[in-house]
Amino acid sequence: MRFIFEPRSVAVIGASRNPSKFGHVQLRNLLELGFRGEVCAVNPNADQILGLKAYRSVLEVPKSVDLAIVTIPAPKVPQAIKECAEKGVKVAVITSSGFGEVGREGEERERLIVQTAKRAGMRIVGPNTTGIVNTANNFTTSFISLPKLKRGSVAFIAQTGLFAAASLWHMLTAERFGVSKVAGLGNKADVNDQDVLQYLASDHETRVVAIYMEGVKDGRGFVKVAREVSKRKPIILLKGACTPEGAKAAASHTASIAVRDDVFEAACRSAGILRARSFEEMMDLAKIFAYQPLPRGRGLAVVTFTGAGGVMASDRAAHDGLELAELSPETIKHLQAKMPLWARAGNPVDAEPLFETLGPDASLRFALDTISEDEHVDMVALFIVALPQFQFDLARTIAEIRAKLATASKPIAVHITGMKELVAEATDLLEENRIPVYPSIERAVTSLAATYRYAHGHRVQ
Amino acid sequence: MRFIFEPRSVAVIGASRNPSKFGHVQLRNLLELGFRGEVCAVNPNADQILGLKAYRSVLEVPKSVDLAIVTIPAPKVPQAIKECAEKGVKVAVITSSGFGEVGREGEERERLIVQTAKRAGMRIVGPNTTGIVNTANNFTTSFISLPKLKRGSVAFIAQTGLFAAASLWHMLTAERFGVSKVAGLGNKADVNDQDVLQYLASDHETRVVAIYMEGVKDGRGFVKVAREVSKRKPIILLKGACTPEGAKAAASHTASIAVRDDVFEAACRSAGILRARSFEEMMDLAKIFAYQPLPRGRGLAVVTFTGAGGVMASDRAAHDGLELAELSPETIKHLQAKMPLWARAGNPVDAEPLFETLGPDASLRFALDTISEDEHVDMVALFIVALPQFQFDLARTIAEIRAKLATASKPIAVHITGMKELVAEATDLLEENRIPVYPSIERAVTSLAATYRYAHGHRVQ
Repeated sequence: MRFIFEPRSVAVIGASRNPSKFGHVQLRNLLELGFRGEVCAVNPNADQILGLKAYRSVLEVPKSVDLAIVTIPAPKVPQAIKECAEKGVKVAVITSSGFGEVGREGEERERLIVQTAKRAGMRIVGPNTTGIVNTANNFTTSFISLPKLKRGSVAFIAQTGLFAAASLWHMLTAERFGVSKVAGLGNKADVNDQDVLQYLASDHETRVVAIYMEGVKDGRGFVKVAREVSKRKPIILLKGACTPEGAKAAASHTASIAVRDDVFEAACRSAGILRARSFEEMMDLAKIFAYQPLPRGRGLAVVTFTGAGGVMASDRAAHDGLELAELSPETIKHLQAKMPLWARAGNPVDAEPLFETLGPDASLRFALDTISEDEHVDMVALFIVALPQFQFDLARTIAEIRAKLATASKPIAVHITGMKELVAEATDLLEENRIPVYPSIERAVTSLAATYRYAHGHRVQ
Repeated sequence: MRFIFEPRSVAVIGASRNPSKFGHVQLRNLLELGFRGEVCAVNPNADQILGLKAYRSVLEVPKSVDLAIVTIPAPKVPQAIKECAEKGVKVAVITSSGFGEVGREGEERERLIVQTAKRAGMRIVGPNTTGIVNTANNFTTSFISLPKLKRGSVAFIAQTGLFAAASLWHMLTAERFGVSKVAGLGNKADVNDQDVLQYLASDHETRVVAIYMEGVKDGRGFVKVAREVSKRKPIILLKGACTPEGAKAAASHTASIAVRDDVFEAACRSAGILRARSFEEMMDLAKIFAYQPLPRGRGLAVVTFTGAGGVMASDRAAHDGLELAELSPETIKHLQAKMPLWARAGNPVDAEPLFETLGPDASLRFALDTISEDEHVDMVALFIVALPQFQFDLARTIAEIRAKLATASKPIAVHITGMKELVAEATDLLEENRIPVYPSIERAVTSLAATYRYAHGHRVQ
């Protein structure tokens, strides 16, 4: 498995001089992103591609080849795989389509290449996938041009090609947390989710694993591996094809076989897998696990600038199995002392009344600081209103609060609303400091709840 | 009720020279946003505020006053309301806190002012609210500075002050659809949701009404009015305090009384109200109703650049009560003719295989165009992948498709993912053309499902 992510030498079978061809992009990605291994091109109809000598067959490559990217028309793939086997290639990543997902003939073709590979002790990733990204060595089999790879602690296993690529672009440009590894598994003719999971379990770069999956061929095997891996790292799973309609769409997409969703749900639960209901939620959860510590209990404190925020946060907390922390009498007393006469301190902490005595900036700091020290508080959801008339020294607030929360292992999640530019500015500042910001207070609370569910599940086991 | 949104003359009782005071901001908003009526300031301790003569009491104002903004400490409010009644003021918007939401004394105070107002035939908005915005005449009682008011067709009724203001800032700066009216109702001592709903039903500027509500004092009355109004315009309702925890938080926020959520849910359903589960979803739904026509049926076509998008869209469609449209044989034949041999046409339409024959731009246009003409298709969900290597002439696609869809009364909703900058650019272009874009394919489908639910519910009745 190591060679899938860490090959020392790579051959692109189907490398092309035509910039619109996958085989061109794949070769260029390896050269331009700075892959730290050897690269060679295979194409019987070219002498040179992107400055590299092109070989007629992988068998003609003089040095050994750890990994072959196979990106030629499906009917020609079986022969190429035979040659890879003969050459002693350790992994073939087949990005071509035209296999199990397109009926009988494709199925037979898929069976054939797996047979060839098994006999030679070679592993196959795909077919019908964009394949692999490793930000640690800049290795990728992607047939989509990629931006500069941003290292981070989130690994992503995706079944599907263009979706994996688009999601990766999204993660590398629109999210701040960065990526450790991506594996697009396509039809999973050989290498499957559990193989990759096992590798990621001991990958030091990876702190949390996100999986998009349409079908699972060996459900028991997957759950068994996931149960072990999830003791070490959270696994967030988005299952496509969880309705008959979705399953029908998936059948022609990745040749996936439908699984009864209630059975699958129970299995995930028993294995400690966190199930996301959308790609957005998967990103939400990945972010909080990448940035924040695990909580010790389920006691949530809400600090809000608007009562409505406290109400919405409380509703979602109840829905997601959290409890509004019962603040200690000292905390209440401390908060009440700064409140105007008409306002009452409690949890949710509505910081707006404090504005009258302290102004917005000091109110925020005072409320957060007081709450953080309460031992009944296990985690904090913060609802900030960003408007021109409220001035905040957020940098100072972060500096004062962050260490305190981290030391006490209390995760925090933030929602900011108001004026677009101020929201963007505050979001940048917070996320640069590894404090996750969400587009709604509900998503902030749901993400906190996931950290509790994970921490609690794995403490009990 | 008309005077609440369209007063000819306004007095700010508690107008202040201190820029940090509500009474200052309220006066300044009226002057700077360009309110098209008369404005005067009432403050016994000032001669002049923001260039206006200040009167000692509303009784000293020489002209008649349609609406008074009351923004003085709670204990002084009853006296001010008495003077308003004597003056013949038609509406008092009380933005001060310190009433029903803070216990016995406040409750008594609230009862007293309502009694005074009732006797004089005066209406009260609030107390404990930010009040009113009308983008048609630039009238507002907001104690938060507001940006230039952007006219649009979405009305927003919010129970709560700072939340209404922050949400309004969000809508005016981060959303493109614009706002017709906002009503922050606070404790709803007198004017309540149904009063405003009734007004909005015949407001030509308003096409859709979004409501955030923590409590409803006269549930039957509200449902009765909502049932009538929702025949004319969609009502989207976000109910805070739908759990015991949320209700507890709401009690100290807006003095709301808890309602059993299952009872409330059933009532909403019977009245044709669309219930949103978060503020985000409320904005999602508001946007599609503001921009798109209502569908004739529940047949969804999905056009996607990635099979995973088709799977996720199908899952959500099934969950939300839509059906994947069965494409006509002609449509299938037409699509299949351009597909490469290994790919099969169906719904979801995976447009990626078409790239091989047509390239990305023409694939998108061809797939959308073909789908739009199928009479089994009632609405379209589109999943675009925005990457540097795919070039689209989206403006041309919009021009060709939009009229066709609108004429056939087929709503469309779009999700775009990929490279951040390209996503932002495409989003701007689409939304400028009134095609709503969502941060996930699931949210696009859920929004389409809401248009079907609304159209269907009100066709049957």
